Formats: sequence, C-alpha cells, structure tokens
Amino acid sequence: MKNITKLRQTNQDESLNITLSDSYSRVRQFSEELTRPLETEDYVIQSMPDVSPTKWHLAHTSWFFETFVLSEVNPKYRSPHPQFNFLFNSYYFQVGERHCRPKRGLISRPTVEEVFRYRRHVDQNILEFLEISNEEQLRGIASVIELGLHHEQQHQELMLTDIKHVFSENPLRPAYMGKEQKPSDPLLPEIDWIEYPEGVYAIGHNGEGFSFDNETPVHKEYANRFSLASRLVTNREYLEFIEDGGYKRPEIWLSDGWNTVEANNWTAPLYWEEKNGSWQYFTLSGIRDIALDEPVCHVSYYEADAFARWAGARLSTEAEWEIAASNLSIEGNFVENENYHPMVISAETNNSKPEQMFGDVWEWTRSAYGPYPGYTTLPGAIGEYNGKFMCNQIVLRGGSCATSRSHIRKTYRNFFPPNARWQFMGIRLAKDAK
Amino acid sequence: MKNITKLRQTNQDESLNITLSDSYSRVRQFSEELTRPLETEDYVIQSMPDVSPTKWHLAHTSWFFETFVLSEVNPKYRSPHPQFNFLFNSYYFQVGERHCRPKRGLISRPTVEEVFRYRRHVDQNILEFLEISNEEQLRGIASVIELGLHHEQQHQELMLTDIKHVFSENPLRPAYMGKEQKPSDPLLPEIDWIEYPEGVYAIGHNGEGFSFDNETPVHKEYANRFSLASRLVTNREYLEFIEDGGYKRPEIWLSDGWNTVEANNWTAPLYWEEKNGSWQYFTLSGIRDIALDEPVCHVSYYEADAFARWAGARLSTEAEWEIAASNLSIEGNFVENENYHPMVISAETNNSKPEQMFGDVWEWTRSAYGPYPGYTTLPGAIGEYNGKFMCNQIVLRGGSCATSRSHIRKTYRNFFPPNARWQFMGIRLAKDAK
Amino acid sequence: MKNITKLRQTNQDESLNITLSDSYSRVRQFSEELTRPLETEDYVIQSMPDVSPTKWHLAHTSWFFETFVLSEVNPKYRSPHPQFNFLFNSYYFQVGERHCRPKRGLISRPTVEEVFRYRRHVDQNILEFLEISNEEQLRGIASVIELGLHHEQQHQELMLTDIKHVFSENPLRPAYMGKEQKPSDPLLPEIDWIEYPEGVYAIGHNGEGFSFDNETPVHKEYANRFSLASRLVTNREYLEFIEDGGYKRPEIWLSDGWNTVEANNWTAPLYWEEKNGSWQYFTLSGIRDIALDEPVCHVSYYEADAFARWAGARLSTEAEWEIAASNLSIEGNFVENENYHPMVISAETNNSKPEQMFGDVWEWTRSAYGPYPGYTTLPGAIGEYNGKFMCNQIVLRGGSCATSRSHIRKTYRNFFPPNARWQFMGIRLAKDAK
Amino acid sequence: MKNITKLRQTNQDESLNITLSDSYSRVRQFSEELTRPLETEDYVIQSMPDVSPTKWHLAHTSWFFETFVLSEVNPKYRSPHPQFNFLFNSYYFQVGERHCRPKRGLISRPTVEEVFRYRRHVDQNILEFLEISNEEQLRGIASVIELGLHHEQQHQELMLTDIKHVFSENPLRPAYMGKEQKPSDPLLPEIDWIEYPEGVYAIGHNGEGFSFDNETPVHKEYANRFSLASRLVTNREYLEFIEDGGYKRPEIWLSDGWNTVEANNWTAPLYWEEKNGSWQYFTLSGIRDIALDEPVCHVSYYEADAFARWAGARLSTEAEWEIAASNLSIEGNFVENENYHPMVISAETNNSKPEQMFGDVWEWTRSAYGPYPGYTTLPGAIGEYNGKFMCNQIVLRGGSCATSRSHIRKTYRNFFPPNARWQFMGIRLAKDAK
Repeated sequence: MKNITKLRQTNQDESLNITLSDSYSRVRQFSEELTRPLETEDYVIQSMPDVSPTKWHLAHTSWFFETFVLSEVNPKYRSPHPQFNFLFNSYYFQVGERHCRPKRGLISRPTVEEVFRYRRHVDQNILEFLEISNEEQLRGIASVIELGLHHEQQHQELMLTDIKHVFSENPLRPAYMGKEQKPSDPLLPEIDWIEYPEGVYAIGHNGEGFSFDNETPVHKEYANRFSLASRLVTNREYLEFIEDGGYKRPEIWLSDGWNTVEANNWTAPLYWEEKNGSWQYFTLSGIRDIALDEPVCHVSYYEADAFARWAGARLSTEAEWEIAASNLSIEGNFVENENYHPMVISAETNNSKPEQMFGDVWEWTRSAYGPYPGYTTLPGAIGEYNGKFMCNQIVLRGGSCATSRSHIRKTYRNFFPPNARWQFMGIRLAKDAK
Repeated sequence: MKNITKLRQTNQDESLNITLSDSYSRVRQFSEELTRPLETEDYVIQSMPDVSPTKWHLAHTSWFFETFVLSEVNPKYRSPHPQFNFLFNSYYFQVGERHCRPKRGLISRPTVEEVFRYRRHVDQNILEFLEISNEEQLRGIASVIELGLHHEQQHQELMLTDIKHVFSENPLRPAYMGKEQKPSDPLLPEIDWIEYPEGVYAIGHNGEGFSFDNETPVHKEYANRFSLASRLVTNREYLEFIEDGGYKRPEIWLSDGWNTVEANNWTAPLYWEEKNGSWQYFTLSGIRDIALDEPVCHVSYYEADAFARWAGARLSTEAEWEIAASNLSIEGNFVENENYHPMVISAETNNSKPEQMFGDVWEWTRSAYGPYPGYTTLPGAIGEYNGKFMCNQIVLRGGSCATSRSHIRKTYRNFFPPNARWQFMGIRLAKDAK
Repeated sequence: MKNITKLRQTNQDESLNITLSDSYSRVRQFSEELTRPLETEDYVIQSMPDVSPTKWHLAHTSWFFETFVLSEVNPKYRSPHPQFNFLFNSYYFQVGERHCRPKRGLISRPTVEEVFRYRRHVDQNILEFLEISNEEQLRGIASVIELGLHHEQQHQELMLTDIKHVFSENPLRPAYMGKEQKPSDPLLPEIDWIEYPEGVYAIGHNGEGFSFDNETPVHKEYANRFSLASRLVTNREYLEFIEDGGYKRPEIWLSDGWNTVEANNWTAPLYWEEKNGSWQYFTLSGIRDIALDEPVCHVSYYEADAFARWAGARLSTEAEWEIAASNLSIEGNFVENENYHPMVISAETNNSKPEQMFGDVWEWTRSAYGPYPGYTTLPGAIGEYNGKFMCNQIVLRGGSCATSRSHIRKTYRNFFPPNARWQFMGIRLAKDAK
Repeated sequence: MKNITKLRQTNQDESLNITLSDSYSRVRQFSEELTRPLETEDYVIQSMPDVSPTKWHLAHTSWFFETFVLSEVNPKYRSPHPQFNFLFNSYYFQVGERHCRPKRGLISRPTVEEVFRYRRHVDQNILEFLEISNEEQLRGIASVIELGLHHEQQHQELMLTDIKHVFSENPLRPAYMGKEQKPSDPLLPEIDWIEYPEGVYAIGHNGEGFSFDNETPVHKEYANRFSLASRLVTNREYLEFIEDGGYKRPEIWLSDGWNTVEANNWTAPLYWEEKNGSWQYFTLSGIRDIALDEPVCHVSYYEADAFARWAGARLSTEAEWEIAASNLSIEGNFVENENYHPMVISAETNNSKPEQMFGDVWEWTRSAYGPYPGYTTLPGAIGEYNGKFMCNQIVLRGGSCATSRSHIRKTYRNFFPPNARWQFMGIRLAKDAK
C-alpha cells in the first residue's frame, strides 16, 4: 500500500485508522459545505451533457465508497438503495449497467434530502468500519479509500464548475456567493522568459505517497532547451488578441479549432459578454466587469493554441511544465481561499521563477493525454479510472482556484477534450530557447 | 361580452364579480391541489421539449393574468418580477422576447416557493380588482379572465400528462398517487355501429357561453351518411393489432407514420413495456399490468390511423364526431373523478348511442386542424392563442380523464401533431355507411 | 376501365392499342427530350433528399412499366436487371425492399448509357405487347399503362425542378438553356376580386376519363360566398412584403412557418439573391434580374400564408379553387411552351374571370391534403400511389410551367409539405365575401 | 533547397530541370492511369464527407501546381478557370474562400473532360516552364514542385481508397478491377517478438532529400526497452477477437472507442460482411471470401487499440516504430504492384527482423499526432500543409498497398482521426520488454 501523506495533516503517532477517519470526514464534509448556497432546485439541473447535477455528484461519490469499499470489506453489506448502482455509476462498465449520462437532469428522485441521507448512511458505515479495523485489516482497502477521497475532491471541483454553468444558463443569473470585486492592480509588467537546460529528465510520480495511476511510472524523457513564461496570460493580453481579429483569422487556428469556432460562433472565452462595447463575464458572484490583469480563464485548448501562435510562442509540453515545477513549492489560489475565481498576481513578483504555477487556472499544455512508458492499469473496475480516456484529450497542469490544495501534485495530470471550456482553464506560454 | 356559464355553478342572483371571483378561486386552487403529491425537485424537470416543468405551468398561467388582465386594467401596475415576462411567456410574440422552450428545464430559479408566492401575489391583485369593480368596469375584461381560466385548465391537463412523462423517465418510476388497480370487467361486447344520415349540418360554436375562437363561427357542412363505433377501441383490440404484426407492416401506415415508427422503434403505445411476454404500462399510480378492457391510450394519430385501416374502418371527421355528439349529455370520466386514467365501461351499456364520447381519452379524428369558414382571430397578442397553430396538426375531440368537466364542450377542438402520444389520446372508429 | 382521353389526341377511329402506343411513345420520348441539354455528370447528382438524380427518374419510370405492366401481362417476363427493382422502386412497399432515398446520389452505376438502354428495352417490350394485343387483352392493363404515363409526366416535372436545384447548388451556375430574357411588361393593374355564390357544390372527378384516385369520388361540399383574385401575386407585390419586414414579423406567420424561417434564415423565395441592393434569381437560363410583373414563384406554403395575412386576404380552399375553375378552359403557360419559367400576363386581360388558373405556377390552397368522403385506395401496390401521403401536406392546384398540358385537370390535386419550395409554386389570394 | 532524390530515378548527370520534368510527367501520368477503369459517372460521387470525388482529386492536384507554381513564377499567369480556385482549394485559408467540403459531390460541372483539359493546360505550362528555366531560376520553386508531386501521390492513394468506398455503397457492387483471388497460404507461424534496447535515439528526418515539414527536425527521444511483433496481425487473429466477443466487451475499449462502436453498430472491420455464418469483404476486385492469413485491414485506431489490449500487448509509439525501421530496407507491397490489397507474407520469413514494415497496410501507432520539438511551419499558405492538423489525430507509419514506393520514407508520418477506417490501415503489436 502506498503511503498516505497528502490528505492528512500528518501526525506520525496517529494510527492509520484515525488518520483515515480524519481525512475521510474532512473531505466528505467539504463537499457538503460547498452546497450551502444552493436551493433544492439548484441540485437537479444538468445544463449540458458535460455537466452533472449537484445531487448526482453528492450521490455518485457516495456510491463509489459503497461499491468499492463497503461491499468489498463486508460481503454481507446490502445497499439501502440497490438501484442507486444504476443511477450513480458513471463509467465503470465492470460494475454493471449505467444510467445514460445526458439524462442525469431528468431525475427528480431520489430527492436532495434522500441523497444527503444516503451520504450519512455511507459515512456512518465507513467510519464504523475504520473504527473497528486494525492496521492489518486496513491493508489493501486504505488505498481505495484514499482514491475515493481524491475522487471526491475531483467532484468538488466539478460541483463548482458545473453550478457555475447551470447558473449562467439562467436568464436571472443567480450568484453562488456575494463577494465584492476588488479594484484591479496596476498594469502587470511584461512576461519574462525563464530558461531550462536540455537533458534527460525523470518525469512522473516516484511512488512515494498517493498518486493516480496515470502519473506513473516515473520514466526518462529527453527535453530540448526551452523557456517558460514567468506568469499566466492575462485578460488584457487576451483582449488584444480578440481586438486583433483573433477569432476571425483561420490561419492561426488548428483546423479542428477553426471548425469549432465557426460551428459555435465563438468570439471570446466562455462566460464573456460584450455590452455596449465593454466586456463583462459571468462569475460565481454574478456578472462583473472584466478585471484586465487577472489570468484569462475559460478558454479551450483551441483558443490557448491560437493565442500562443498569435503571440509568437507556443504552449509547453507537460514534461516541460513538470521540469519547471520540480523545485517550486506548491502554493497558490486554491479552493480553500474561497475565491472560486482566478486572482491578479502582485506586480512586484520575483521573475526568476515562474509564478502562479499552482492554483488559479489549469494550464493547457500541448501534450495529448496518453500512457507513460510502462504504464499499466489496475485490475478490475478501478482500472477504468484513467486509462480508458487516453485519446482525444489534452493534458492540463497545476490545479485551479476550484482545486483543493491537498489534491494537487507536481506530477498531477488533468485532461479534457480540446473544446472544453467550462473548467477554470488558462494559458501559460512557452518557447523553444534560441 | 359572452355569458359566463360553464366555470361557475351558476347562481343567477349573484353579481358578475362574485361569480368571477368564485370561478377564479376554484380554478386557481385546483392547479395547486394537483401539485400536492410532488416533491420540490419534481417541479423542475423537463423530460422532453414538449413537456414543461410543473413550476413553469404554475408561473406561466399566473403571468397570463398579470399580462392580459392586471397590466390592462391598471396602467400603473408593476410586476414584482418584470423578468418573468421573458421566462414565462410561451409563444405570444406581441408581448416580447421569450425564453427558449427546450431550455425550460435549465432554470432552477425562481424557486418553487417563489413561484407560489408569485401566484399569491397575482391572485390577491385579481381578487381585489374583482371586488372593487362593478359590472360596468368588468365589461371587456371579464372575457379575458374567463379565457385565462380556460387557459389554466388546459395547463392543468398538461401538468398531469407532463409529470407522468417526467416520472416515466426516472428508472425509479415514482408514482404520483397510490391508487389500487381494480380487477378488470368481463369481456366487452363487440363494437356496434351507429348510423347518421346525410345532410347539411351546422358545425361549430353558436356564441352562447364561452368558447375558444377556433370553434367559431358556426357554419354549414355537408356530410355523407356515416357510422360511428359505439365505444372506444380497447387495449385487448389494440393488442390483437400488435400481435398481427401491426407495427411491422408498412402497407397499413401513412408514409410519415411508417417513418416515425422506424425512426423511433415504436412497437406499442407510449408507456407500454413487454416483460417476459406480458405487457405492462406506466401509469400515474406506477407500473401496472395492462387492463385489457380499458380504452387504449397514448397512441399517436399515426397509430390510430393504422389501427383503423387494419380494422377495415377509418377515423371520423371532426364534423361527424360533432354531429354524433350533438344530442348527448356531457358525462364521463373527467379529472374531477381523480382517476387520471381511462376507465372500463360497463358491459351492459346502451348501444343505441355512442358511449365514452366525453372524458377518458381524447379521440383522434381524421381532420387536419384548420380554420372554419369565416374564422377570424382576435386582435393583439390574444389572437395568437389558436390560429397560428393551424398547420401540421390533427383535431382531437371529447376530453380525457385529465380534462375538467367545466372545460369541455361538444364543439371543443383540441389539436396535436400526428406523432404526439403523451396526452391521454385514444381511438374511436368510424365507417362510411353502406 | 376508364376512358383514355387526355393523353391521346383522340382519333375515334383508332383502335385502343394504336392510341396507347402513340401516347406511350410521345410521353416516353418527351422525358428523353428534356435531358438533351445535360452532360453525363449532370444525371448523377442529388442535391438534397427531396431531389432525385435525372438518371434515377429515367430508370424509375421505366421500372414502373416493367413492374406493373410487363411482369403482370407476361408471367415469364424476366427483367434484364433484376436488381433494378431494389434501386429504382420508390415507396412501393408491396413490391419489395427499396434503396434508401437520400442515397440516390451515391450510385454511379448503372451508367447513364445503361439506363437509356434499359429504357429502350422496356419500350420495345411495351410496344410489342401493345402491337399484338387486342382490345380484350388490353382490358385491365390499359388503365395501368395510362397511370404509368401520368406518373412519367409527374417525373418530367420533377426532372426540371430537380435539375434546377442541382444547377443552383453549383457555384459555376450552369444554365439548362440559353433563353433571352424579355423586357418586362408595363405595370399590371391591381388585383380584381371575382365573387362566387354560397351553396352545395359537386367537387372531385366524375369518373369520365383518367384521374388519380385521390380526385375521387365526386361528392358534395358546402361553400360560403367567397372572392378569388383575378390574377397571381407578382414579384413586385412580394417585394413589397419583403421590404415591409415580412420575414421579420412573427405575428403574421404560422408558428411552424416562423420556426422554419428562423431555422433556415429565409429572407426571400428560393433562388432569390440580393446583390448590391437589387434582387436576382437563378433560373433554368441562369442568373437573371427579377422581372417584377411575373408571378412570384418558389415560395413555400408558409410564405404564401404569411403573404396573404399581410395582404389582408387568405388562400382559397381547394374546393373554392375548383368551383372557380369549373367553367374555365384549360389554357396557360405549360411545359410545351418550353419557357420552364412563369410568364407575365398581358395588362389588358379580362378581369371578369380569373387569369392564370392553369400553368405558370402551382397555386397553394389552404387545404390540408386528405381523403375525399368515400375515398378508397386501389388494392395492391398501386394503391400506395396517393393515399399514404395524406398527412402533413397541403394541396396545390392548376399546374405550372413545368406541367404537361395533357397531364392537368380541373380536379387535379397536387400536394407538398408546407415547407417545400423547389417546385414552381406561387400564390393566388382569396377572401370571404362581405 | 532540399535535394530531390526520391521521385527521380537519379541520374546524376541530368540537369535539375530534366529530372524535375521526368518526375513531374511520371507522377502526373500515374494519376490518370489510376482512372482508367472508371466510367464518367464514377468520377462525380462523394459517398461520405471524408471521401472526395475522383474528379475533385484530379482538379485539386492541378490547382495546387497552378496556385503555388504557375502563379508564383509568372505574375502574368492567368488561370483559364479562375473560379476553380474556389472549387478546388481544399483547406488553404490563405489563398481564399473554399467550396464546402461535404458538397463536393453536388458539382456536375466542370465535366470530367473539362477537368482533364485543365490538367493538360497545367501540365503544358509547368513543362514549358521547366524547359526554359535554368538551375538558377528553379531555385526556390523546385521544392514546391516536389512538394506538389508528393501531394499528388497522397491524392493517388486517396483516389483508390475513395473509389473503393464509393463502389462499396452501390448495391450493384461494381469492381474496380477483375483480379483473381489466389488460394491462401498455409497457416502462418505465431508472431515473434524482436527486442530493442533502451537509450536516446535520433528521431525524425535529417534534411537529406525531400521530407514533409512534420518529419522535422531530427531530435532526440528517450526510449525504454521494447519488443515489436515480427509481422502484422492477420484476419485469422482478428476473427478470434471478434469471436471472443471483442466488439461486445466495453472494458477492453477506450471510452471514445466504445461510444463509436455503439453509435455505429460496428461488429467487424469496414467492408466486412457476414453471410450465412461466413465472412466476406468488399475489395477493389469485388466481394471476396476473407483470406485468413492476410493482414487485417480497414480497422480504426479504436479497434487496433482494443485488439492489442485483448491480445495482452499494445501498439508501438511512432518513435519505437522508427527505431525498428531504421536499418531495414524499404521493400513491400506498394501501389506499383497493382494489387491494391494487402498480401499474405511467406510462411518462411526470417523472424530476426520485422516483416511487412513497409507497404500492405498503414500501421497504427499509439502516438497522437503532434509537433516534434523545434518544429516550425513554412511561411504562407504552404505552411498550412501539415501543422494545422496536429490535434485529435493518430500517427500511422510504413505506407500501404495504395502508396507509391517513391513516396514513402522511414520517417514518414501519416495521420488520421482515431475513428477513420477507409484507408488501408492495419495492426502491428508491441510490448514493453520484460
């Protein structure tokens, strides 16, 4: 079993079951905290096929623990709602038939209250199991529990991005929270370019502490010399791209990207709206004027790639990103900050190392999501977690303002199709070193 | 102004405002009574574009009174929610832009509670207006109020058919109510044929009491001799059609009908399911074994037409139906019975006149929905009520188990596209007389 | 057997087989004459699902004679290409499986030459059969041959409208013929209104001479007093409608019509193009400036209906049209004129009777296409000819510039879905008489 | 300027213009030779959006020379058909608007004969230019001519795969050629595994002789130890996969792959048909029984990946493939063999090196198509050739039975979306070395 270091604030004297119970309670509670601003009706809506209702997220993450933990450790365990296996399974073919994904918004029952009751049932059973188990008994299942908690943290991020999309579709434009908008900082200095040397690098997770299988094994990659931008691309810079006809010049777009722009009439990032010549965006605090020095957000890979080409640069590979991240500390604007929105960095930051590598926005790389050399999936349904998506997706790195600090790693590989925009996704430029 | 006779249990001594207040309160309350079995989450779902969320029905019918009554009689009236005009307008172009119909299920706010509060606000204002108005002041607007009440009754029927569809899409198959299924009657006797003579008939509404504009003007039509079936087609008879390969024989279908069968893989009426060789259907009381002697329900015009051809008969024209209905009394299984489901008729009915002409199921005619000779629409937005749908729709007659007794008339013209099945729709056969 | 009077220039001394041979040769040859301007490549294209390749029309009409005549009269007859039954059957389910309609343009073989060879084979066999048959032997089959010839005339009209559509899709805009455009007549006088009295009228075909089954039986209909426009609506009048915002005012459109306008961005009739503020249209002679006094053409039912409402009038019913046509002679701009385009009428026409009732453009009525009282289909596959399309279609009357004079009748019922525009379709107004 | 070594059978004494003229004539003639079996009608059809009509291929490749050579070297050059720039441009945004790709099959004009005339016009002008130019004048443009010839060879391959698809859609199943099917060899021996050592390798084209830009620059990649299969996967082996439920087991498929299988009801490779329990496929010689020892062909990446997973192996990366190919000679079943179909290898092949690496079928790698480190596009429209497709595509290597021997290189990177099957595409397995 892998060490469990990330989710617990490690106290080396604590026994494993206490540590797990603490992590479990903390992560599970945080899911429920995120729902506090919601009305019952908000939990039900699926505003597009990629989005799931909040109710579904709450139930699905519980189903995960029921299916892969409770049913595993106790063959006599019986779900109080056996039909939930059908409703709240997502893509695990090996545990049975699933409800059709685009129909998640057609399900009024179970009610929100019943889902919370289901969560409490699962929580009680998990915590009881942890209480009565010794280290020996936890061997094997502890890593599944930890996987379940990381899985739940992924859904916490989706809960935020999904409810943002749900609210944006409502002409009344409800706000998730009522935060004040701070006045913007003065103009940021230009991007600096930080250079990294050529060589063979070790990429991927070395097995100490938790990781997803797609981060392994650690392996060697050859990298040329390259430069990475000292900070993220800002709304101000992205506006220049728009005003320079960025969305009207097919020659700077990937072919599929241009088709997507035309098919969807894209003229700006998701949630942006032009009104009387000035730009606003929809945020979790409602409609706002665009803050020019903030990192640009809610752009697709196609837009990130076109912007980079327009700017005479490119996106980094995921290996390059990981090389640059390797001696940074993981700090940034994470979900714990309760901004739920990217932040402006201070104008006086130290440009000898890249800023904002963690938090704020997921950074599109130019790397297609695929298996690392020597990658193998786990046996059984858990093996379906990552490997089956290794096609038609692009890697993103670094976490966002909706990511938990305890969830992210330098080797963490997030991935989305190149047309996805509803996550907190942004742009960091890279260059071949001259 | 037309007489108001149908919605009030007429007390000739009452003044018009008291009569209107009573009718108004009764109809508006009934909408809310129909929602009693629902959970908050149930109000939000739109299971297909034809279906509207319950919440939408409740708000839209209130918006109607606000827009066409309150704003008309009091120029100073201000809606507490001006944006509801956008959300809850349906197809009245002349009162502004509308929210896109297929997106009604993406709207979690206003909440259910806010919608009920909006209803109470409208009700209070309407009732206050009625209280302070004399007959003089009511002239002109009383007919709009009555139209609004008939409009609300139409939406009451839709609330039942829509929630049935919503629940049917949920794999948990919730029940709207818990009614017992009665044991079926003995086998019904064969259909008798009742003959009507050739001649020139007056068809349409003569203007006494309320009617929709599409029922007017009364006009002459020439009818050949014809025969009408003494009762509705039963599930037993429809099963024979299925078992005789009814859904596999293109030669008995209209061309568009056969394309619809193939595109949707229809093999039975909506809500029917075959399990282990026996048929069940989803009802507002949950899944049930099919009662063989009940009128068949939830069939499209295409199915009604194919069944009739298979049976060596045809559907009636709407004029024929109205001729046959002209000297019958309006009795039947209406929404007041709280069955919300068609019923088996007694085996010993009098076959000298057609049974079940009213209530149970809307009866598909073979008549395309069009304007009567001399038909004109009302001026303004109210004129959009009926006339603009006079294309690609088929007339149905007689009301159903979800129709209010006070809503139906012999001249009432319901209409739906030929592929619609989610209303309580059934089949009565007709024949040319030999 | 019905008398055969229309297709032959009747010589009462001729025997039936000579008459049939003459008609057969004349009609069949005309199909081939229509193809003279075409290149081999032109025969292959299907520019939309409604359109069939010219090659298909030529083969399908031959297949009709092979299947319903040659195979019927001679059980030993073997098609030289049995697989053509699959390729060139259109919708006759009772004679086997059919090639998918939208895929007709994917078939390069049989080649055009092979199709002409197939025609010659069928012609030779039919003519041989007619030569050796006496009146006795022709009984029964003569009506099928005549049906086949009328069927071929229908496809001749489609060949013209379909090749027009094919050419219009080609950016090179090839012309079918090189006709000069005549200078337009002076401004036409205003429309006059010709009034018809109320009463019971006999409508439909009385059985003398050939008719399609859908024109029968003759039956009584009651008509109110009405007025019919003395001529067709012109391009000039239609332009006024456009310039008055006709395509931007939902309140004058049927609901389905407005949805169609929005979904397809219609702003003018099919084939119209605005260039630098002036209108042109694509014709079979290429791109031309619009002739203002010509009858407007290539409008859908939705456009005809909206125009009529805008003009304070309506479309006629098909019964009204037939009443007005009953004592007119059938004269007009038919396919024999080789205009393949509607013509301007003389400004000095006699306005005591309606002009242009025949030829020029098919006139949209307001009548949904349905069965006449007492209508029955023929047994077998031939019975599929008309009845199965009696849903979601609108009746048009009077023939067009692409219709053969010998094909049209006063009782002739053409029908198309309300959104169809690629036929030569236009508008005549009607009104309720005051 | 790069050396031109591949397309000419190099005679070092020849001057550059003679060499170019020879290459030009040979390649251009071969395109026309490939059309010899076709009827005029065959040139017109586009059987799916990916397919282009033969006529289009012939014209587009000529347009390429006209646009990028004739117009470049002679500013006074005027195309005889300026509108062809619109019709026969493919995706070069920088040279103007383009005709919509899926509508290529709607264009009957220019006729086939006109297209051949256009080819002759371009050929004459190019050859004249080459004749009168000296080495000095050719500098700069020679590489574009060579690019044009490689471009034409790519379209030659497409002409074969596209006409195969066109013919397969015709129920008459025409054959492109009448070749005999040879009796199959005896059972092939099992696959051997050939191992390659770990290390840093030089990957990509070193700049000697022609290459596409996407093969450059040569760069270093780190590879782990790996093993490559000694031969391609055969139809026999693929049938085992099918019979083992390969198309019914979601757990062995990529998520997008399984969705594709379900959406398209895939149960076998493209062109395979089961008849009475035995398998046949459509080939350019018509319908044939499947030859069990032939390499499997017409499989998508999804199928190749699922097969590999089922077989306990994986696909190679493109770097691994290139490492293995580096010391092999380029021999195989190319288009010059005129088989237009993959061949069975001899059972007695030497298994110390991989067989069939070149020709027969393009081999799916597991590598997403992306830019090599340091890759830059050429300036102008020519730069759109490859780079803009670097998303959502998978690399294939080695050429096929429809590829010219003079066209392929060890560094050649072909690419198609993972669901494409209509090219000659097959499977070679790889493994991590233990």
